[in-house]
Amino acid sequence: MNQMTNLTRLSPKDVRRLSRNRKLVGTTISLCEGYVQANLVILPEKDAFDFLLFCERNPKPCPLLWVSSPGDPHPDGVAENADLRTDLIKYKVFRNGKLMGEIEDITDIWDSNLVAFLIGCSLSFDQILLQAGFHLYYRQGDQTRVYVYVSNIHCKSAGRFSSPMVVSMRPIPGDRVSEVVAITSRYPKVHGSPVYIGDPAGIGIDHETIIQMTKKYDIGIVNNLLPTLPNNITPVFWGCGITPQVAAIESKVEFMITHGSGTLFITDLKLEDLAVF
Amino acid sequence: MNQMTNLTRLSPKDVRRLSRNRKLVGTTISLCEGYVQANLVILPEKDAFDFLLFCERNPKPCPLLWVSSPGDPHPDGVAENADLRTDLIKYKVFRNGKLMGEIEDITDIWDSNLVAFLIGCSLSFDQILLQAGFHLYYRQGDQTRVYVYVSNIHCKSAGRFSSPMVVSMRPIPGDRVSEVVAITSRYPKVHGSPVYIGDPAGIGIDHETIIQMTKKYDIGIVNNLLPTLPNNITPVFWGCGITPQVAAIESKVEFMITHGSGTLFITDLKLEDLAVF
Repeated sequence: MNQMTNLTRLSPKDVRRLSRNRKLVGTTISLCEGYVQANLVILPEKDAFDFLLFCERNPKPCPLLWVSSPGDPHPDGVAENADLRTDLIKYKVFRNGKLMGEIEDITDIWDSNLVAFLIGCSLSFDQILLQAGFHLYYRQGDQTRVYVYVSNIHCKSAGRFSSPMVVSMRPIPGDRVSEVVAITSRYPKVHGSPVYIGDPAGIGIDHETIIQMTKKYDIGIVNNLLPTLPNNITPVFWGCGITPQVAAIESKVEFMITHGSGTLFITDLKLEDLAVF
Repeated sequence: MNQMTNLTRLSPKDVRRLSRNRKLVGTTISLCEGYVQANLVILPEKDAFDFLLFCERNPKPCPLLWVSSPGDPHPDGVAENADLRTDLIKYKVFRNGKLMGEIEDITDIWDSNLVAFLIGCSLSFDQILLQAGFHLYYRQGDQTRVYVYVSNIHCKSAGRFSSPMVVSMRPIPGDRVSEVVAITSRYPKVHGSPVYIGDPAGIGIDHETIIQMTKKYDIGIVNNLLPTLPNNITPVFWGCGITPQVAAIESKVEFMITHGSGTLFITDLKLEDLAVF
């Protein structure tokens, strides 16, 4: 029995407590099946209205689950007895539109003028897709790669925030694309239905632009080249909650904290409770 | 004002009466918006059970709207005062697995042991797609071509009937494929959601096989080569009610009558009444 098998038994509360005590390393992929995982964005109060508007205008990449009052790190109603300053495995810190690095705790840099945003993450519905028999390639074998790309789809701007849309990609058999649309449409709070289906080049994703975008927007994710897919497998793209990190760079925000790569905040929300039909 | 503009005002009853009186030529594409158009299949009683089972097992290409009792050409409940022997613009006649030709009236070859099947047609939802702003290419300019192909998807066999699935194709912008899945999912009785989305080659459709299939299964439709699409346009495929005609050839049925090319039976059913949600 490997480590992952044991960890899948952990409750959201367990994961948050273990993270707080610095007992967990690695990613939250596969943890707490059935529970909603969230992207974290923390901004100074002065940028909070613009960002809230950005989320409101771009619900596919940035579906809001919860927004704090200034200075309040406790997402009550979303996660019991949680503290956003300590309960993630890792955090990224951006300063002046640049990723400074990843750290394990943000207690020291937290202050009373910060506002926290939790944004749904599509990892939340992967478990349902797996149960439905989809092979999410990035979990096959020892591959744990998530396919994430900067597309040429323009998010709607809001105040100081503008950004191209970051998208996650899952390779889906062409004869099951309708089904994957139907399943994911039920959960708009974790990105909902696909934003684009078909040739990646149609939204500006090809090998050359991937390299350019990875250089232009260094958010610390691996340069994912496009996988070679058989012709009966169709690339399906969803909005991605990493978009705010690209917006931080594009908009040169002075200060932003986010979750670390693959280390999302795990809520007490059950995915099924967010289904809209 | 061209002829088509006038004809769109006709009610289903008008079209059936005009067809009966041999006043109409051309196709039923664009006629009777909002009403369900149906593929017609007529078979001897001895083959009716096998074919009914074939439809039951293959609801995507062959969604049944109505089945007659043997010898009854009046589809009561589906179309008032209608007669399936006269109320279509044209009919195809197949004998011994071969298309014999198209005729305008089947009164002379109708007999009391024949069973008629009405199968939903995806032309029925095209009007809704047009209203939603989709450009169905085959109606642009003077193009009235419907993209129809024999795929390599195997229908489930039933008794003497087996067939590859015929599919219709609509080119859809990649960022609206989710929407077109959502819209068409509501109408399973006119083929419902797409059976395949993506590279045509993934279901065996390429220029070479199109030519081979058109030769192998001569059902009197134009050899539709694949259109060249921009890379942000995705080919989307639905099951097609022409499948029984290919089955007639594949299964070498002694006798089958169907609607003629593009000349469907127009029912009194409103599409919205068939929506399942």
